[in-house]
Amino acid sequence: MAFWGTQLKQESDRRMDTTVKFAAAPNSVNSVIETDAVIVGAGPVGLFQVFELGLLEIKAHVIDSLPVVGGQCVELYPDKPIYDIPAVPVCTGQELTDNLLKQIEPFEPTFHLNQEVTLVARREDNRFDLETSAGTRFITKTIFIAAGVGSFQPRTIKVDGIDQFDNTQLFYRVKDPVQFHGKNLVICGGGDSALDWALDLVGKAESVVLLHRREEFRAAPASVAKMKALCEAYEMQFLVGQVTGHEAKDGKLSEIKVTGPDGVTRRLPLDTLLVFFGLSPKLGPIAEWGLDIERKQLRVVDTEKFETNVPGIFAVGDINTYPGKKKLILSGFHEAALAAFGAAPYIFPDKKIHMQYTTTSPKLHKILGVESPVFD
Amino acid sequence: MAFWGTQLKQESDRRMDTTVKFAAAPNSVNSVIETDAVIVGAGPVGLFQVFELGLLEIKAHVIDSLPVVGGQCVELYPDKPIYDIPAVPVCTGQELTDNLLKQIEPFEPTFHLNQEVTLVARREDNRFDLETSAGTRFITKTIFIAAGVGSFQPRTIKVDGIDQFDNTQLFYRVKDPVQFHGKNLVICGGGDSALDWALDLVGKAESVVLLHRREEFRAAPASVAKMKALCEAYEMQFLVGQVTGHEAKDGKLSEIKVTGPDGVTRRLPLDTLLVFFGLSPKLGPIAEWGLDIERKQLRVVDTEKFETNVPGIFAVGDINTYPGKKKLILSGFHEAALAAFGAAPYIFPDKKIHMQYTTTSPKLHKILGVESPVFD
Repeated sequence: MAFWGTQLKQESDRRMDTTVKFAAAPNSVNSVIETDAVIVGAGPVGLFQVFELGLLEIKAHVIDSLPVVGGQCVELYPDKPIYDIPAVPVCTGQELTDNLLKQIEPFEPTFHLNQEVTLVARREDNRFDLETSAGTRFITKTIFIAAGVGSFQPRTIKVDGIDQFDNTQLFYRVKDPVQFHGKNLVICGGGDSALDWALDLVGKAESVVLLHRREEFRAAPASVAKMKALCEAYEMQFLVGQVTGHEAKDGKLSEIKVTGPDGVTRRLPLDTLLVFFGLSPKLGPIAEWGLDIERKQLRVVDTEKFETNVPGIFAVGDINTYPGKKKLILSGFHEAALAAFGAAPYIFPDKKIHMQYTTTSPKLHKILGVESPVFD
Repeated sequence: MAFWGTQLKQESDRRMDTTVKFAAAPNSVNSVIETDAVIVGAGPVGLFQVFELGLLEIKAHVIDSLPVVGGQCVELYPDKPIYDIPAVPVCTGQELTDNLLKQIEPFEPTFHLNQEVTLVARREDNRFDLETSAGTRFITKTIFIAAGVGSFQPRTIKVDGIDQFDNTQLFYRVKDPVQFHGKNLVICGGGDSALDWALDLVGKAESVVLLHRREEFRAAPASVAKMKALCEAYEMQFLVGQVTGHEAKDGKLSEIKVTGPDGVTRRLPLDTLLVFFGLSPKLGPIAEWGLDIERKQLRVVDTEKFETNVPGIFAVGDINTYPGKKKLILSGFHEAALAAFGAAPYIFPDKKIHMQYTTTSPKLHKILGVESPVFD
């Protein structure tokens, strides 16, 4: 794949073959979406970026690696109270997300979830080609990176050499549950994902062993109770312990070694290992787009537009850095507002953009789909 | 009065007599309030400044020229919807203010309303002396100017030479209604203030004439109906017209000239003229504090701390300017957060300030007076 980084180093090269590469990509059966703005990240700041662009009549597509909108807020603390959103004395991450979704409703953004951006390349017409891991393809005038701490990737199991079985016998996500039917499964983890899949696959798999490092679970108590009942009925098994090694036979994972709280290591034969250790954020492919990066954050050129060193690519929220930067949601909101104004000239090169107020502007009222009150 | 501007120009002078001047000031019967922070302006950004300082355990006093908190939001559009507060799809200026007041409750700010700052001067110990028009005196380590478009001052009547009667026969505010009893009054205006005072003073004044430039009123319909009933009962009089001149006799205002919609100018004898043309914002004494001003706005040195050219004085919200500045409430919120961090070294010179999150910090939970949830 032609990464942006490579492209930047070859400023003088012709880049005509970029679209050809898209066409040849395995998943690129979709037609190309032409748009003014692509927002990378559907966390609170990405959502509010939709709003600020919307006020300037710029429609946006939003991409996120998670299957839901809300980003960190929903992934890390959906039910935990946040106290420092201005004029919102207290709200949870989920409530914050719901309120932002309601606020951006008039602007009808298109969400592309469960996929991350894999390619960004400058086109000859100065727009960007952008492609995601799901094969969604865009041609866009501007890009807003609101990726927070990066894309959330599954935490991997730390056992030497076991990664050679990734996606054949070792899985961190379930895309097609049917492939596990009839198999001897070991499922690792103590959260909802581990419990839900254990309960779902019992009776369909040949056998199910749930493995967790301790007796306590993060999963919903009802799921835990169900699991325990199934264990008592000998339909599945629960073990306390951690995977500390593995054995292979004929190039296939044949068993794992499980060390229990008693310090004793036992052998556990299996066909397939499912691991649900939660998600952890990674900068991911963004690191390869030729952007100015300082300690895993994108340095913006100034605090006037929050544009990166690549004209047309803006960075807002926790992922950017500048003198005085604080990783506060409210700062991301401010950055999104200024970035929208900064991006407008790329989208409307001939239009003079005037600041208007949502309280008084009949034009903004029309855009927002609300009635203009009569002022005296 | 020793204005800050003067002080700045006399860097090498001794300034020991500043406090003596305070003691001699007419209203300064109060003792001096020693504090870490004074916020000038109780609009949304000034209120949120209380919050951001509070999270850093800095207590603040808030001064405003209006008799109520809320600033422009409450003065100009208390009932009009605002759509661009992040995560608040719609709220009125009053609701925004109420939510912010609720949010800052844990920090118990002290409000000093109905007064404007008249003096700011650097002390020898590097703190500031600050005094208000009500004689309230402070010694403070830092000042946050969140004065929006300036302090709200009554709009004056534009008639050549009539200002010589200010506060003797011409009034824009009613402090002591009793002084108008027994007088021949002309009250100008069509809003609630004009109507309310007309209704209040009828029967107590010798005569009341209400003068408004047109038949329509901004005032509450019930007040207008009451006024019309009183006119029909010959207890007061309503005229449509504008003041276009005045006559004086023996140095006293004896009559005004009123031009009606018919173009005819009539003479109207009176003792006292009350004018209620609403409020308009003025930068006021801030202009004289030696701060770097660009088109009635305070230029901040950088967007890292939003500090003015005078160390220890910060400017946040609509009153400041910097490259890319948009006069958005949400930008003021961001500025208040960074200004709080910028000010902390003046208040806690030996303390290292760490950013903490309201969602996860037990210390912040204690400061906010909320229970720390148990995390697993």
